[in-house]
Amino acid sequence: MKATVLFSALALAGSLGFAQNYPTAEQTVPDVMGWMKGFPPSQEKTLHASDGSFFEFPALRYSVNHMREFFPTRNVSSGNGKKYQLKTKLDPAIGNVTFTPWDSDKTMTFEESLGANYTDGIIVMHKGKIVYEKYPAGLKPDGLHAAMSVSKSFTGTIASILVAEGKLEPSKKVVEYIPELKDSGFADATVQEVMDMTTAVKYSEDYNNPNAEIWAYSVAGNVFRPADYTGPQNYYEYLATVKKLPDSEHGDAFGYRTVNTELLAWICSRVTGQGLADMVSGMIWKPLGAHYDGYYQVDPSGIAFAGGGFDLNLRDMAAFGEMMRNGGRLNGRQVIPEIAVNYIATGGSSDEYKATFAKGDYPKLQGWSYHNMWWITNNSHGAYMARGVHGQAIYIDPAAQMVIARFASTYYASNKYIDPLSIPAYEAVAEYLLNK
Amino acid sequence: MKATVLFSALALAGSLGFAQNYPTAEQTVPDVMGWMKGFPPSQEKTLHASDGSFFEFPALRYSVNHMREFFPTRNVSSGNGKKYQLKTKLDPAIGNVTFTPWDSDKTMTFEESLGANYTDGIIVMHKGKIVYEKYPAGLKPDGLHAAMSVSKSFTGTIASILVAEGKLEPSKKVVEYIPELKDSGFADATVQEVMDMTTAVKYSEDYNNPNAEIWAYSVAGNVFRPADYTGPQNYYEYLATVKKLPDSEHGDAFGYRTVNTELLAWICSRVTGQGLADMVSGMIWKPLGAHYDGYYQVDPSGIAFAGGGFDLNLRDMAAFGEMMRNGGRLNGRQVIPEIAVNYIATGGSSDEYKATFAKGDYPKLQGWSYHNMWWITNNSHGAYMARGVHGQAIYIDPAAQMVIARFASTYYASNKYIDPLSIPAYEAVAEYLLNK
Repeated sequence: MKATVLFSALALAGSLGFAQNYPTAEQTVPDVMGWMKGFPPSQEKTLHASDGSFFEFPALRYSVNHMREFFPTRNVSSGNGKKYQLKTKLDPAIGNVTFTPWDSDKTMTFEESLGANYTDGIIVMHKGKIVYEKYPAGLKPDGLHAAMSVSKSFTGTIASILVAEGKLEPSKKVVEYIPELKDSGFADATVQEVMDMTTAVKYSEDYNNPNAEIWAYSVAGNVFRPADYTGPQNYYEYLATVKKLPDSEHGDAFGYRTVNTELLAWICSRVTGQGLADMVSGMIWKPLGAHYDGYYQVDPSGIAFAGGGFDLNLRDMAAFGEMMRNGGRLNGRQVIPEIAVNYIATGGSSDEYKATFAKGDYPKLQGWSYHNMWWITNNSHGAYMARGVHGQAIYIDPAAQMVIARFASTYYASNKYIDPLSIPAYEAVAEYLLNK
Repeated sequence: MKATVLFSALALAGSLGFAQNYPTAEQTVPDVMGWMKGFPPSQEKTLHASDGSFFEFPALRYSVNHMREFFPTRNVSSGNGKKYQLKTKLDPAIGNVTFTPWDSDKTMTFEESLGANYTDGIIVMHKGKIVYEKYPAGLKPDGLHAAMSVSKSFTGTIASILVAEGKLEPSKKVVEYIPELKDSGFADATVQEVMDMTTAVKYSEDYNNPNAEIWAYSVAGNVFRPADYTGPQNYYEYLATVKKLPDSEHGDAFGYRTVNTELLAWICSRVTGQGLADMVSGMIWKPLGAHYDGYYQVDPSGIAFAGGGFDLNLRDMAAFGEMMRNGGRLNGRQVIPEIAVNYIATGGSSDEYKATFAKGDYPKLQGWSYHNMWWITNNSHGAYMARGVHGQAIYIDPAAQMVIARFASTYYASNKYIDPLSIPAYEAVAEYLLNK
């Protein structure tokens, strides 16, 4: 049970330090390791969600491709409408693009970074075409993979669409949408503050602290919790227990707290009358013409895990990114309102946003900001990202007309330790494509 | 926990007696009852697998449409190939076809029987066209529904295909395929005896007996079993514990024991190197051109629940039945070998098969037999069926060129109590279509 809770925690944001002597990406390819292989698999190769073994490295390299085989899930239908089409014109030279990892004096090629980052699948798109596509480990082109906190950006996109459509008012207080939270720390925060994770609530994701709120939150959402558990019955009941930080004001500082995403999904459900999986299906997946149904891990009340529970296909994720890069259009169809895309991509770049972000704990991400559940680089290319633990990413670079979609399963959870090998790599490929 | 085990047991074969004063089909439509509705759902409307509440009538009327939201599952991909096409030419007069339920002296219309049987969805096909299609409760045309023991017939079809392809030898002993079972009661049974459920093993599905083997079997396969559980870790480890019935011989008598289906799937996996979900995908679902992915509930070792864990779309199930009726062909494609279809449809109709079946406990099914995990009526139309608890059915009537696919959620588990309202109804519609 403890290990399961730990997984839930790690799956959220992660803050593991560097660890030494882990086996390499090649050594930990799931087919090589043999997890869950055989009829039946041997006990030492059997992974369980109930004891957390499924998410210990390197076993997680198998599990990220098979989340629904461990948890209850709700389908995100792609429907029976017209599917998007993406052209492919591979440029193998991308693999040879070199970059210098942060804190290093040695260069590395883009292709070398894929192994160093335990990449499971990566697609680079340029001007709407797939120019690079690799599946080094476990993931199949027709498979699904855990998006981890990239899920947050899908929740933020849903909220941004609702704002664009005039159905959700970001300046309203949380309590106006969710009266159940009137006694919680969220009550007087605005919806926009929730979207930007600047709510001043007492909620720690410090895994080294046994009293951190992350533990109670994780148990509330865990279907494998003990039978005698009597705490909050689901994510939303947990949210009602969250207190305000003493001597703090909403809006002052960015603080990466996954509870904001659960709350945002709750607000969106109140507005639409639909659960998150159905909203993503109806507002994004079907209009996009996704090729594969996705799914959400659900809590004991059937509530989708908005902060980290979405699983989807890599090409579908690349197509989603390409649609974002194109002002909400793909294959000539307006998938989501352009106003929602602009709201995400350019609405969080003011000095005020940067100052708010700087109060968070991301010293390597100088000048960045966080807005509508997306990470805004504020670099000269106007790049912005969706990011998830263990290396999940969508990197959208408008200037370079480039989108990168990546699934991975590094032994690090936190992107703090993954960024040094990936952000400069993405920037280098963008420069290459810009000058091509 | 106990209730969950009870569910697993009921989901297998069921033997509940008649119960009185249950609310009607109309009163128990899931949307009316409101289970899992709201954000979050109220506690009294929240259903759990871990405590079994999800499968108590009438809550099960919701759950049969949402099984993956309660359990870990494995996808059955329909692939990206060409989808089958079924023409529709509705004949509303079918609803007015009358029949006399068994043990009754009052006639009823076919449409009335749908309510009396708590039908969730039904399709009647005639000469390859959909002539009747209704979704009275909960199930949507694009939804999936639990097939319960109709799943067994899919396992039997996989085995029949492997026999037709020369990959599986039905006269061989179980132990030749599964050496791990050398000390079990199954060791010296033939594969055909497993396919026909005539193995003489000590295995009771009597839910009134606390020592019945069904309980140990259900716990072995339950992801929600207690953390301190130390018994068999999965369905296959359980099979190794099954003993032979004293003073009995394999092949002598039909005995409806779900363990045979798990064993058959195991044998097929050994032959193909694939799990059941992948076999059904590759050997049936993709070549059929199914419109929707299906899925299997899986045990704690990721093994598909072959005896009752398949969930699929109703039209896909009707198309599967139509393919069977057409000697394995649909839309001009040979989906499965004709020899496999004939093996199922006509291979179990000898007097010997009927005599073996008569030793089972199905006094209402005079002259029937059980063969390759299908129910053979041996009536003048050559009809045969796939059957699952709570009213799931595929009824294939070659003479009438008719296929009926039905999903339901009656308060009875056992078909013994459902047959009186359904078998004569199917026969009456077949007569109507034959004479149309």
